[in-house]
Amino acid sequence: MKAVVCSRGQLTVDDVADPVPGHGQVLLDVARAGICGSDLHARHHADVVAEVAETAGYHHMMRSDQRVVMGHEFVGTVAEYGPGCRRRWKKGTRVVALPMISDGARPHLTGLSEKAPGAYAEQVIAAESMVLSVPDGLSTEEAALTEPMAVAWHAVRRGQVRRGQAAVVIGCGPIGLAVIAMLKASGVKQIVASDLSPRRRALAGEMGATVVVDPRLTDPFDAYTPGRNEVRSVSDLVGVALGTMGKLRAVPGPVPWWRVFRLAERLGEVPAGPVVFECVGVPGMISQLVDSAPLRSRIVVVGVCMEQDAFMPAMAGTKEIEFRFVFGYDPGEFHDTLSMMADGKMNVKPLITGTVGLGGVEAAFDALGDPEVHAKILVDPRSGVTTV
Amino acid sequence: MKAVVCSRGQLTVDDVADPVPGHGQVLLDVARAGICGSDLHARHHADVVAEVAETAGYHHMMRSDQRVVMGHEFVGTVAEYGPGCRRRWKKGTRVVALPMISDGARPHLTGLSEKAPGAYAEQVIAAESMVLSVPDGLSTEEAALTEPMAVAWHAVRRGQVRRGQAAVVIGCGPIGLAVIAMLKASGVKQIVASDLSPRRRALAGEMGATVVVDPRLTDPFDAYTPGRNEVRSVSDLVGVALGTMGKLRAVPGPVPWWRVFRLAERLGEVPAGPVVFECVGVPGMISQLVDSAPLRSRIVVVGVCMEQDAFMPAMAGTKEIEFRFVFGYDPGEFHDTLSMMADGKMNVKPLITGTVGLGGVEAAFDALGDPEVHAKILVDPRSGVTTV
Ligand SMILES: [Zn+2]
Ligand SMILES: [Zn+2]
Repeated sequence: MKAVVCSRGQLTVDDVADPVPGHGQVLLDVARAGICGSDLHARHHADVVAEVAETAGYHHMMRSDQRVVMGHEFVGTVAEYGPGCRRRWKKGTRVVALPMISDGARPHLTGLSEKAPGAYAEQVIAAESMVLSVPDGLSTEEAALTEPMAVAWHAVRRGQVRRGQAAVVIGCGPIGLAVIAMLKASGVKQIVASDLSPRRRALAGEMGATVVVDPRLTDPFDAYTPGRNEVRSVSDLVGVALGTMGKLRAVPGPVPWWRVFRLAERLGEVPAGPVVFECVGVPGMISQLVDSAPLRSRIVVVGVCMEQDAFMPAMAGTKEIEFRFVFGYDPGEFHDTLSMMADGKMNVKPLITGTVGLGGVEAAFDALGDPEVHAKILVDPRSGVTTV
Repeated sequence: MKAVVCSRGQLTVDDVADPVPGHGQVLLDVARAGICGSDLHARHHADVVAEVAETAGYHHMMRSDQRVVMGHEFVGTVAEYGPGCRRRWKKGTRVVALPMISDGARPHLTGLSEKAPGAYAEQVIAAESMVLSVPDGLSTEEAALTEPMAVAWHAVRRGQVRRGQAAVVIGCGPIGLAVIAMLKASGVKQIVASDLSPRRRALAGEMGATVVVDPRLTDPFDAYTPGRNEVRSVSDLVGVALGTMGKLRAVPGPVPWWRVFRLAERLGEVPAGPVVFECVGVPGMISQLVDSAPLRSRIVVVGVCMEQDAFMPAMAGTKEIEFRFVFGYDPGEFHDTLSMMADGKMNVKPLITGTVGLGGVEAAFDALGDPEVHAKILVDPRSGVTTV
């Protein structure tokens, strides 16, 4: 079959061996595959990525000198079953799948390993246990976004934005935009989006941001109405403690004052900052957010920064900053995401800014470097389009 | 009155103006004051601390060229009330207090600001609303540890160690040892303590660590029995997903598999690492823990590092590390701590390794630099002891 092979930073359309589904595996005809920012990075820096993964205990990631078919965000139709399958779906059924398979002994990430070729190809293999059928009414194009939307859903769930708390999204690339859509879908009332690019700021508004700022002109942390329990400085925090204690002294009755703090905690009324979603992923972001975020902000780090970053731990300490680094999603979140899209909880169509055939993948990779033009480009292996 | 004045890194016993309690303030005769690691730092680096505090929005911290009386961990007896007090305790009552007062307009941290002289002195001022009486049966020496034990209690609460989850304490200085005591008091079954110093390792065992390691010989993350939901690598994590999905396929019945993930989450059975308490506070710790901690570890950063630290965000991302930087405690936690000590939930006496008079404070500051000799040294303003 035809596939886009990545080797030593080159992307070329080649004939590769037809994939054969193994035990418990399904062969899919690829309908659409989304191009992911991590693929852009892996094209040129596969070895750095593999080394980080290695230290984290994952040993089969693609290397620059291998010949790898990338593409981990895909929708396809069931073509054939391997042995030991339940054969739950008729051939031709539209499905999505979590991009992970096992060779019996070891798991591999589809599209990020030589052992698990991805979906920039006519066909791709999925684990039957990881497959979900696409609900009627959800377009094939939208279904192709299940995977990146699941990344955003995982980040938003880990963010645990409380009622009345603001969310601040730093960086409105495809993942930042997906986070905005998921925040809106989960009912967050104040969503501040910040990006240098006018095009991306416009998309942020379309996806549901309530305030959109150019960070060169407006501090995103000044762009929302702080919740009544948001404190902006240590001095305020100490003031809150002294003030509360002073007031409580005046309250007659049997409730000891320290109980009030426990109660406030249970009601989510302890002093807190906003939930921040870092979706840029370049060196300097950690330090910038530690310095600029309000006291007790929770910073969910979604952007993947592959270089060292430095910051002042004492500053993070004084402000009681919390960092939650996130990666991927669990199968439940993948399922939820597909359901939410099918139920119309969000409209992801504005994210799709182009479609190419296999011969256009390299041009698409290059085009995605310019934030003024594209957000998400889909690959349609049956299309002859070579430019975007 | 006599007090230890810190100015330009010098500690000298001087005659200072007798403190006069203002509105809502109580004057205490100091019985004991603990010497804190942060005081050792502030002695020589007050300006750096003040600048970090300034950026965090706190504007009144001590400067090296001021004349400041330090000491924020204290127990004393009620000597006199200012105007507007409830006068809740008889004169002579033993009390502790949160080290913060207000001058009406602005709050100040006692012992860390020129505006709020601390307890290395014969007398100290406290806000009446911040005062708690020391329960009978709790010694004055132990009560002096309420403040640092509250710091540890706040850290342990923020750590939210779950049943079956291990706690790993990196660094067994006074705060690490206090964290160990609080972990034990809150019922954590596996407490690994790691320190280079044999003396501190011995104290860690006394305070309740179940495993004590020299990190040059044993990786603290290999020193406990991982919980059944602890995963050690990304590969394991993917394997868990694939394995779970595979098994669930074989389970007949009406429960969709994605529901199982939600249920597991609610039961606290999603893959997680240990809760790590960073109590060292030197550059390099963040990076070392990001590299060495298991997947999905929660790292509570208690140690205060006043220099820049660098790490790989991508590594923290791949491993889904969570950082919770902590600072201080709330009034409820201060109250809880005093109750726990009075109820015998922990024995803090082994932490107290010496007592000096005001004339011995400088020698005590110097002695605390050697981890083989001292943990916590108390100041007794009525004592004539000048060496430790
Ligand atoms: Zn992706
Ligand atoms: Zn202290």
